[in-house]
Amino acid sequence: MYWGITGLGEPIRCALAVGGHAFKDSNPNNDETFKARKEATGQQVPILMVDGKPMGQSKAILKYIGRISSFDGKPLYPTDPLEAYWCDELMELCDDVRAPLAPTFGIADQAEKEAARAALLAEDGKCSKMLAKLDKRLEGEFGTLNVGDIYAFSVCNLFRQPTFIDGFPAGALDKYPNITRHHEWVAKCPPVLAYYADKDGIRTTFKPFS
Amino acid sequence: MYWGITGLGEPIRCALAVGGHAFKDSNPNNDETFKARKEATGQQVPILMVDGKPMGQSKAILKYIGRISSFDGKPLYPTDPLEAYWCDELMELCDDVRAPLAPTFGIADQAEKEAARAALLAEDGKCSKMLAKLDKRLEGEFGTLNVGDIYAFSVCNLFRQPTFIDGFPAGALDKYPNITRHHEWVAKCPPVLAYYADKDGIRTTFKPFS
Repeated sequence: MYWGITGLGEPIRCALAVGGHAFKDSNPNNDETFKARKEATGQQVPILMVDGKPMGQSKAILKYIGRISSFDGKPLYPTDPLEAYWCDELMELCDDVRAPLAPTFGIADQAEKEAARAALLAEDGKCSKMLAKLDKRLEGEFGTLNVGDIYAFSVCNLFRQPTFIDGFPAGALDKYPNITRHHEWVAKCPPVLAYYADKDGIRTTFKPFS
Repeated sequence: MYWGITGLGEPIRCALAVGGHAFKDSNPNNDETFKARKEATGQQVPILMVDGKPMGQSKAILKYIGRISSFDGKPLYPTDPLEAYWCDELMELCDDVRAPLAPTFGIADQAEKEAARAALLAEDGKCSKMLAKLDKRLEGEFGTLNVGDIYAFSVCNLFRQPTFIDGFPAGALDKYPNITRHHEWVAKCPPVLAYYADKDGIRTTFKPFS
């Protein structure tokens, strides 16, 4: 259960698809029981309903799916302690990238809000600083796709046009070669490619660029 | 490597102690090489140095320690997918509790800063709302101590006097019976009790209250 946007629900949807799990993507646009069921849980979305019981907190859900899924013969959330550390570390770095966005959702004036968001991606902007760190983190060869990669892919797409977050200039992430390379690598993984093949709108950015 | 405060370094120190790992708690007060070594890593603290290599991101470090540690015959970070989910979920809920604090660190005026923090803990304050959720989350029996419990214990202690964060009223967490019960349960776990036995100042709150 989540809104129709990508946001924090999208990595979960993508991981469920990669793991080959049948799931119902319930949102206010396709499910008239959404609001009542959401309120009955007393939790914030995203919520994963398993056997009628709600599971909350987006990264905890994502890692849970990773634990019960595999891709290319490896667990989608690594079991080796050091590999799992690097997966967790990547997710936490992505949270550092998106953290400066949070206060902008509280800005009432539309022009002011868009200006604040553009500033985050300007030279030396708060998000730019973290994106530069993420770009360096993604240097070198990628391993086997895991939930950390799916999270990084989804978080970076928040900043790419078209997105549901107003105010980001087009092409803002083009200057980060490793982030772009990582995007292409994730987008071209066969189950990711298949899941997004018939998607459009704000999910256009989840397809390969080339 | 971390500042002398508790903050995001303390759950790591506590987990290292519970896991029985020998470690050097390096901070600017006890290590004159701290600043140079920190800058050489290019990362934010806390940093765990293992065999001369830096590991960053506090929750990723904490879970890594949990994976290579055990307590009472069980892994300090659960390996069962559902138990691990509930551990992750608790940590993410604790991040929701502390998230509203972040903007207050940027308030220059001391009186204004303290007022903003007191407001977070007032009836219907942003932290109070999440603390009420956490209190409900901690209802019932506790299982075997894990890194999620250590994280919850440390995050809640940020709000207890004495703390390094100015502006919180004394006794602000007294109205949450399950949070208090959880505090006592963690504080009385033998390796936690032993680690804090000779600590004082802002670490007084890491000892049992009764």
